[in-house]
Amino acid sequence: VIYGKHFDASVPPRAVGAKLLKRNLSDLAAMGGRPTAAVLALSLDAHTSLEWLEQFYRGLAACARSHQVAIVGGDVAQIDGGLTASLTLLGVATGPRILTRHGAKAGDTIYVTGRLGGSLPSGHHFRFTPRLAEGAWLARQTDVRAMMDLSDGLAKDLHALTPAGTTPAIAAKDLPLRTGCTTEAGLTDGEDYELLFALRKEANADAFARTWRQKFPRTKLTCIGQFVPRATAPSGVIDLSRYHGYEHLR
Amino acid sequence: VIYGKHFDASVPPRAVGAKLLKRNLSDLAAMGGRPTAAVLALSLDAHTSLEWLEQFYRGLAACARSHQVAIVGGDVAQIDGGLTASLTLLGVATGPRILTRHGAKAGDTIYVTGRLGGSLPSGHHFRFTPRLAEGAWLARQTDVRAMMDLSDGLAKDLHALTPAGTTPAIAAKDLPLRTGCTTEAGLTDGEDYELLFALRKEANADAFARTWRQKFPRTKLTCIGQFVPRATAPSGVIDLSRYHGYEHLR
Repeated sequence: VIYGKHFDASVPPRAVGAKLLKRNLSDLAAMGGRPTAAVLALSLDAHTSLEWLEQFYRGLAACARSHQVAIVGGDVAQIDGGLTASLTLLGVATGPRILTRHGAKAGDTIYVTGRLGGSLPSGHHFRFTPRLAEGAWLARQTDVRAMMDLSDGLAKDLHALTPAGTTPAIAAKDLPLRTGCTTEAGLTDGEDYELLFALRKEANADAFARTWRQKFPRTKLTCIGQFVPRATAPSGVIDLSRYHGYEHLR
Repeated sequence: VIYGKHFDASVPPRAVGAKLLKRNLSDLAAMGGRPTAAVLALSLDAHTSLEWLEQFYRGLAACARSHQVAIVGGDVAQIDGGLTASLTLLGVATGPRILTRHGAKAGDTIYVTGRLGGSLPSGHHFRFTPRLAEGAWLARQTDVRAMMDLSDGLAKDLHALTPAGTTPAIAAKDLPLRTGCTTEAGLTDGEDYELLFALRKEANADAFARTWRQKFPRTKLTCIGQFVPRATAPSGVIDLSRYHGYEHLR
């Protein structure tokens, strides 16, 4: 997390510390992993207040404790202006396999957890709960073929899940937008920290949704579309190439 | 490694990439570890040239290959101005134990590999060879009780190895200074990336030195002093409190 980019003076330092870990927990959740240990590299201006740093560490420590993550080391260095905190999280698979972004096939249906868009104005970007339990369960479902977490916006991130020769057919009406968000916001705002995954077309979608509601009654699950052969993309779907997610370098 | 701090435009980008990994290899060497995998978090200005980045990665990759380190992931983010590269290195113990900074006792003798001081002007700070083989061997010697690598200068780093109630008795004439370096430079310049360790006083120092010369004929080894009870510190030793090593925040 970088000052001026992932947080600013409006975000409480405890929330910044927690966010740093939660971003990584979300990545691990998307593979069906369980976190174990972390190291922290801190680059900060010598004028950073000790009070701020202490609160930052308290937020990080509380989040680490609640997820049984041991902070096992790190590094500190001085930079001129700003603050950059880089955390590396280690984890282990919770079951017989981990999920990656690769493995979806033509015909697979596309699901997303939670709601999309407006992460920054709503404060979701530091209040979110990493989907660790959901990710661990999904990695055990053989019908789930590929998974990732949404950090740069659906329009950009979905490319990474899309099988070669196909295109995602998604209708705007199916997107689970955060209240007050436009379709564009839902596609491009970024920092959703929700799970995006592909379910094989042969799966029993009704039974899958029923089981989900029993296991995770408080986590919304939405089928937002399907990977279709590029030549047969139906009309009425969103042209994702019109939208740009978060670009890390501009 | 941070632009303007650990490197600047005078250091070839390949050397910067290698240095980033070698700094971490040196830490691992100091525990008697063997490296396995690394992740890289890169924060860079959008105007960083692709040519520079490619050379940086080539240097990193060549060093990783030669040490059988797999670069297994990472992250990239944009900052305004400068470049910060943070690498986390994973490794495993090469023998039945790892060495840490703790464990030295009163009477233990103090050894250092290589030469000290002048790392920046001599180019040693990016040309050094991490002492992995030496560290792995030392961790297997039961007479070696504690070890660390020298990165902030002997005057500062030695505190971390010093047992409670003792003081390091070191004579200036025994310091293996790099050619042209003053005692002060040898104690405070930093970035030596040499091993510093404590040998129990009961050890056969002559036999130890003989074996060392057989195993590592190209790595200089120097006994620089001893941890003595604080009340009995002899005259003629260096008062380390007069010297300050590298301070990360000033």
